[in-house]
Amino acid sequence: MSLSVAVVGATGVVGQEFLRVLEQRRFPVKRLRLMASARSAGRRVSWMGAEHLVEDLATADFRGVDVALFSAGSGPSKTEAPRAAKQGALVVDNSSAWRMDPDVPLIVPQVNGAAAKTHRGIIANPNCSTIILLMAVAPLERQVPIRRLVVSTYQAVSGSGQAGLDELDRQIAEEAEGRPPTTKTYPYPIHRNALPFVQAFAEGDLTTEEWKLVKESRRILDRPDLRVTATCVRIPVRRAHSEAVNVEFERPVSAAEARAWLAVAPGVRVVDEPGRLLFPTPRDAEGHDDVLVGRIRKDPSHECGLDFWCTGDQIRKGAALNAVEIAEHVFGFGPSAHRPGGARS
Amino acid sequence: MSLSVAVVGATGVVGQEFLRVLEQRRFPVKRLRLMASARSAGRRVSWMGAEHLVEDLATADFRGVDVALFSAGSGPSKTEAPRAAKQGALVVDNSSAWRMDPDVPLIVPQVNGAAAKTHRGIIANPNCSTIILLMAVAPLERQVPIRRLVVSTYQAVSGSGQAGLDELDRQIAEEAEGRPPTTKTYPYPIHRNALPFVQAFAEGDLTTEEWKLVKESRRILDRPDLRVTATCVRIPVRRAHSEAVNVEFERPVSAAEARAWLAVAPGVRVVDEPGRLLFPTPRDAEGHDDVLVGRIRKDPSHECGLDFWCTGDQIRKGAALNAVEIAEHVFGFGPSAHRPGGARS
Repeated sequence: MSLSVAVVGATGVVGQEFLRVLEQRRFPVKRLRLMASARSAGRRVSWMGAEHLVEDLATADFRGVDVALFSAGSGPSKTEAPRAAKQGALVVDNSSAWRMDPDVPLIVPQVNGAAAKTHRGIIANPNCSTIILLMAVAPLERQVPIRRLVVSTYQAVSGSGQAGLDELDRQIAEEAEGRPPTTKTYPYPIHRNALPFVQAFAEGDLTTEEWKLVKESRRILDRPDLRVTATCVRIPVRRAHSEAVNVEFERPVSAAEARAWLAVAPGVRVVDEPGRLLFPTPRDAEGHDDVLVGRIRKDPSHECGLDFWCTGDQIRKGAALNAVEIAEHVFGFGPSAHRPGGARS
Repeated sequence: MSLSVAVVGATGVVGQEFLRVLEQRRFPVKRLRLMASARSAGRRVSWMGAEHLVEDLATADFRGVDVALFSAGSGPSKTEAPRAAKQGALVVDNSSAWRMDPDVPLIVPQVNGAAAKTHRGIIANPNCSTIILLMAVAPLERQVPIRRLVVSTYQAVSGSGQAGLDELDRQIAEEAEGRPPTTKTYPYPIHRNALPFVQAFAEGDLTTEEWKLVKESRRILDRPDLRVTATCVRIPVRRAHSEAVNVEFERPVSAAEARAWLAVAPGVRVVDEPGRLLFPTPRDAEGHDDVLVGRIRKDPSHECGLDFWCTGDQIRKGAALNAVEIAEHVFGFGPSAHRPGGARS
C-alpha cells in the first residue's frame, strides 16, 4: 500500500517535524502535497531530495488525498478539516478544534488505538502534555485503576512553535549583550524564569492547558470519573515537556511493580537508577520517540500513592509522531510499537 | 540594644547575603566578625565601608559574640555550632545539621516564632524550599487544617551556591561559543534542562531535598500527622525557588478565602489577577523579601482541594533573611513583619 499524503501547516515547527517523521519511518508516501496559509503559499520546501510547492490551504483540493496531517491551528482546522474529510481524506488534526467533539476520536495509539475505528473522516491528536502524561499513566491504569492524578508540568518553549524557540534564543542573546529581555510571545521573560501560565486563562482560573490535561485524559482513558488536577508551567527548555506526576491508585502499587509495567510498555523507556544518578531529563528526550519515565517511588503521603517524573519530545510524540502513528494505525501498517501490547521499538 | 554578630561562612553566597540583609535591615551591629574555613581565612571583606578580616572558623573564639549566623555547611556546623553556643553565642544555623534535633528549634518566625524560646543556644534555619512553601501554607493551615500537600518544585541554581550559579552561566557561554556544555556541579547540563534531582538520593528513592520538605514541614507546623509528598526539580533559574502546590484541606476552601487569608499574611504578597495576566515568576521574586503567591484556584479533582503557585528568593527568605529574622525575633526587635499576626512590611 502506498498513500497520497497532505501535510497542512507544512512550514510550521510541527509541519516540518511531520516531514522528518514521514521520512524516518519510511511512511509509504505515493504523493506528497504541502499546504499552508496564504502567507506561506508559494514557498518551496524540500523533502527527500525533491522540491514541493506549498499550496494555499483555503483553495487546495483534497480529492485523491488519503491522509491529511493538519497542524495549522484551530481556526483553519475548524473550516478546512471537514472539507478535506468530505473530499475523502482521513484528517489527523493536531489542533484543539475537534478534541472534545464526541464524533471525533481522540487518539494515542498506544493507549486507545481501537477507538480510532469509529472515525468519520477526522481524528484528533491530543494536546502534547496529555499525550506524554498518558504514555506513562496508561500502562499503570491498565493494571490497577487510577483514582486521581496531580500533575505539575515543566513545558518547553517549542509548545509555542518557532516563536517560542525564537523568544528564548533572543532573550539569551540579549542578556549576553547586556540588554534587557524583550518579550513578544510570552508576557514575561522566559530565559532564567518559569511562567505558571500556558496559553490562556479559562474557567475557574485554570489555564486552557490545565483543562486539556483534565478533560482529554478522561476522554482518552475512557474514565469520565477520573480525578485530575494540573499546574502547567513554561520553563526555559527547548522542546521536551516534563511532568511531575502524583498518582493515587485504587490499591497500593509498589515502585517495582510500576517499573515492571512501564518497562514493557511500547513507546516508553524507563530511566530510573538512582544509585547511578540515572533519571530522565528533557534534554535526553529531545528528538527521540520514546517517553522517558523515572523517579518512580512510593508516595510517603498516601498508602495508594506513587510519584514519578516523565519527559517526552513535545514536537515528536507530543505532536507529529503521534499523528503519523494514528495514520499508521488506521491504515494497519507501520511499526508495531504503537499498538497496545505490541513489541518494543 | 546593640549586638556583636559573627557571620560564619562569610565568603559564600549566603554569607554575603547575610551582610546585605544586616545592612538593609539596619540590624544593630555593635561589632561584626567574619569567619570561614581555613581556605578563605585571611581574606578581607568589606561591609558598610569598613574592611573585615575573615577569621579561621576552626580556631575562632566566640566569647563576646551575641549572635552567630552560620552558613558553612553541615560538617562545620556539627562541630563548631555547639562550641559557639557554649561560648555564649546564639547560633542560627543555616545547614541541615541540627534541623531534626528535638533539642533545636526549627523556626520560620512568621510560622512558629514562639517555638524559638525553647532554644539551648542553637536555632536551626529550615531548608529553603520548606521556608518558601510554609510561608504560603501556614496562613491557610491557621484557618483550616490541612490534610495533605503534593508539592513540585522549580528550584534555582543558587541552591547549590556560587558553584550552581557559575555552572549555568558557564553552560550558557559554552553554548554561545558552539561548545558542548561541561558539567561540574550537576550530573547533567542545567542550561535548557530540568533535573528531577536535588542534592542526593535517600531512603525510598526520594531525594534528601524531598525528605526535608516532608519532615521539616511537619516539624515547623507541629503537625506530625501531616501528609506531604514532593518532587524536587532543578531548573535554569538564578535565585528564586518556585513551587506548584496542591493542598487538601479538612473542609472545602474557596480561592477567594485563601486569597484573603494570604493577603494579610506577613512576608507574603499575593500576585494573582488572571484577567491582567498577573501571576508570580521567580524573576519577580529575586532580591525581594516577600514570598509571592498566585494561581490560587479550586482543585477540580477534589472537593477540599486547592492549587496554587509560590515563589521566593531562596538566598533571602530561603536562607539569610529568615536567619536574621530569627535573631530579631529572639532578641525582640526588628520589623514586626515577621511576627505572626503582625503588620505587613
